[in-house]
Amino acid sequence: MNTAVSEKPANPRIDDLRINGERLWAALMELAKIGATEKGGVCRLTLTDLDKQGRDLVTGWAREAGMSVVIDKIGNGFMRRPGRNNALPPIMTGSHIDTQPTGGKFDGNYGVLAGLEVVRTLNDHGIETEAPIEVAFWTNEEGSRFVPVMMGSGVFAKAFTLEHAYAARDTAGKSVREELERIGYIGAQEPGDHPIGAYFETHIEQGPVLEDNDKTIGVVSGVLGIRWFDCTVTGMEAHAGPTPMALRKDALQVATHLMQEVVAAALRHKPHGRGTVGMVHVHPNSRNVIPGRVKFSIDLRNATDALVDTMAAEVKAFAAQLSKDSGLPINIELVSSYPAQIFHGDCVDAVARAAAKLGYSNMPAVSGAGHDAVYMAQLAPAGMIFIPCKDGISHNEIEDAKPEHITAGCNVLLHAMLERAGT
Amino acid sequence: MNTAVSEKPANPRIDDLRINGERLWAALMELAKIGATEKGGVCRLTLTDLDKQGRDLVTGWAREAGMSVVIDKIGNGFMRRPGRNNALPPIMTGSHIDTQPTGGKFDGNYGVLAGLEVVRTLNDHGIETEAPIEVAFWTNEEGSRFVPVMMGSGVFAKAFTLEHAYAARDTAGKSVREELERIGYIGAQEPGDHPIGAYFETHIEQGPVLEDNDKTIGVVSGVLGIRWFDCTVTGMEAHAGPTPMALRKDALQVATHLMQEVVAAALRHKPHGRGTVGMVHVHPNSRNVIPGRVKFSIDLRNATDALVDTMAAEVKAFAAQLSKDSGLPINIELVSSYPAQIFHGDCVDAVARAAAKLGYSNMPAVSGAGHDAVYMAQLAPAGMIFIPCKDGISHNEIEDAKPEHITAGCNVLLHAMLERAGT
Repeated sequence: MNTAVSEKPANPRIDDLRINGERLWAALMELAKIGATEKGGVCRLTLTDLDKQGRDLVTGWAREAGMSVVIDKIGNGFMRRPGRNNALPPIMTGSHIDTQPTGGKFDGNYGVLAGLEVVRTLNDHGIETEAPIEVAFWTNEEGSRFVPVMMGSGVFAKAFTLEHAYAARDTAGKSVREELERIGYIGAQEPGDHPIGAYFETHIEQGPVLEDNDKTIGVVSGVLGIRWFDCTVTGMEAHAGPTPMALRKDALQVATHLMQEVVAAALRHKPHGRGTVGMVHVHPNSRNVIPGRVKFSIDLRNATDALVDTMAAEVKAFAAQLSKDSGLPINIELVSSYPAQIFHGDCVDAVARAAAKLGYSNMPAVSGAGHDAVYMAQLAPAGMIFIPCKDGISHNEIEDAKPEHITAGCNVLLHAMLERAGT
Repeated sequence: MNTAVSEKPANPRIDDLRINGERLWAALMELAKIGATEKGGVCRLTLTDLDKQGRDLVTGWAREAGMSVVIDKIGNGFMRRPGRNNALPPIMTGSHIDTQPTGGKFDGNYGVLAGLEVVRTLNDHGIETEAPIEVAFWTNEEGSRFVPVMMGSGVFAKAFTLEHAYAARDTAGKSVREELERIGYIGAQEPGDHPIGAYFETHIEQGPVLEDNDKTIGVVSGVLGIRWFDCTVTGMEAHAGPTPMALRKDALQVATHLMQEVVAAALRHKPHGRGTVGMVHVHPNSRNVIPGRVKFSIDLRNATDALVDTMAAEVKAFAAQLSKDSGLPINIELVSSYPAQIFHGDCVDAVARAAAKLGYSNMPAVSGAGHDAVYMAQLAPAGMIFIPCKDGISHNEIEDAKPEHITAGCNVLLHAMLERAGT
């Protein structure tokens, strides 16, 4: 008999615990039927009838699993499995079940149903946790019908007000408030009036890194900071034929150098620097007219705000010199700024430990995209678990993930949550 | 008495001949009233009621000047002042009186009315020419209502058939044939069934070179050859956030290098090499999505077909290497090809001699844009006379030219035509 006391004593019964991968997969496929598209994707826009059907299905499953369900005023759902000590703040997981118009089966949905599967697994084995377990679904994470994106978690974290969210309207003129009322998902609880002990979120990576490195689990250390700029280069439009090269003010040619600098700045700030020109508008955009004006977007990202601000400063300095050299005015305007979020070391370590204990190949990861976990990290220790998705593709009907990865991510979630919740 | 015989004896009476600049300017302003726009330009689209009014005005003036008027089956007009020897083919000048939708007062109109002013001047001084003088206006040079452009001169030169031109329809579905009949400008003469001794065309430069060099007359040696290509770079669209730089297939970044090569190829083949990327379409053109496909136009020009073909070969070789280096497919497709046209040495020299004799500052010039003279050059010795236009701007309501340049160009035309027609 080993009488030595360690901080985290091995518990063979808990260590051997595994979720039911087939049940989780079946739940994902069942939910994906609501709003299923011909091409195998899902179109279940937030606060539509289909979203209501999805919410009803998921909360029905939660109640069958013995969970209580609370809806707050922005329609966020909290599905709770009591612990031994219900005075403790819950250990929470969650994500969203709304999708893009041409979305897939896994984005968001996986994070919610993985939480449900954790609870079902604990039920199967009669395991009681010290702290309660909660599974959340956040309203309108995708932002494709109403802006801002990550609306439910944003209101919860007081990033913006409930009134601001309520007032948002879709292209048909319907407001968030009207639609919440219509589908019956406007609750009584004040958003944010809900303590959280820790927050975990499982999600498909939405990028190609895990697949490229042949790893099963991404231990997410944080979410990249983002700066969005609009850049305009102003030249002089003129006929392509009669205007000799030396007398041109070709806005596009000048712009190409700055577009290349956006990538160069990212490459100077490895490993997480990212620079993208995704949108370009050329004026007048005619085959035989020298472009008089080019407007394009700049998207800069990095793991810390200091790094992304350094990249932005370098791009601006390059633009200033380019403008001087070419004689063409270049205007760069900040459009949006999203701070970097570094996840709590305890949660990141809990994910890493769980992956290692379970024998899954894993690697550190950063999230380039925003998630509800970013807002939760402002309120409680938080962490994320990534699994590979096929070719790194999401927000697309061909979005795909392997059942063994779906299972692995959920097992990591189970063990990370149990570590935090206590058994 | 000087009895020496020279090939071109000085004739003081002819050498002192000058056109009436005020009358020419007044005619230009009068014609510009038909279709005048609020911003000071002209909108007189081909084969409209306004075009009929313009044609009626100009042919009326011609008849008042004692000229006969012949219209051919495509609506080209030939206004003739007989010579001493009417068996000789006429020395012709001309241009067009249709305009762009937001056109100016001078493009085309100047070339026709300068011809009329030459005749009026000869009448004023009772000067008879050996060969007849003709002033032509060509149908639908602009091509903004019906394609192809340079339709009347193109049919005349048999670049395409009369039936092809007749069948062209505007966006309202009306055909060239119907509209010619409607405005009463469908003549009996078979297009091209009309000999030409030589052809001159005065035109605003539509470029900035003369103004930049402070010269009054451009002695046009030819019209640049043109090759139009569509280029497509195919990458892989992916989210800007989650996709690290090393795993990207960014079609726009690859495209920027090829866009720069288009200009570099032009600069390697001075002085007349021109390279333009005027049109760019980025797919999906979203701020936070790495471009999956970029399609753009390439416009290459130079003074000879050999040079422009060399430029095209260099751009294609660069693209092939770029595709190899980047791993992204690059497709380059020829869209249109317009051969270079070198004007006849005798006509070019006649223009240069006239400019020198008249004491106008002048320089060799090339035309980067197409003109009716290009088709005429396939049928007879031809040349062009350029005058400066403000800021090189045309096809715009703010198109402008100075009265002294208008006068100078017409004086050069007068003396070049007299040299060819004989007095």
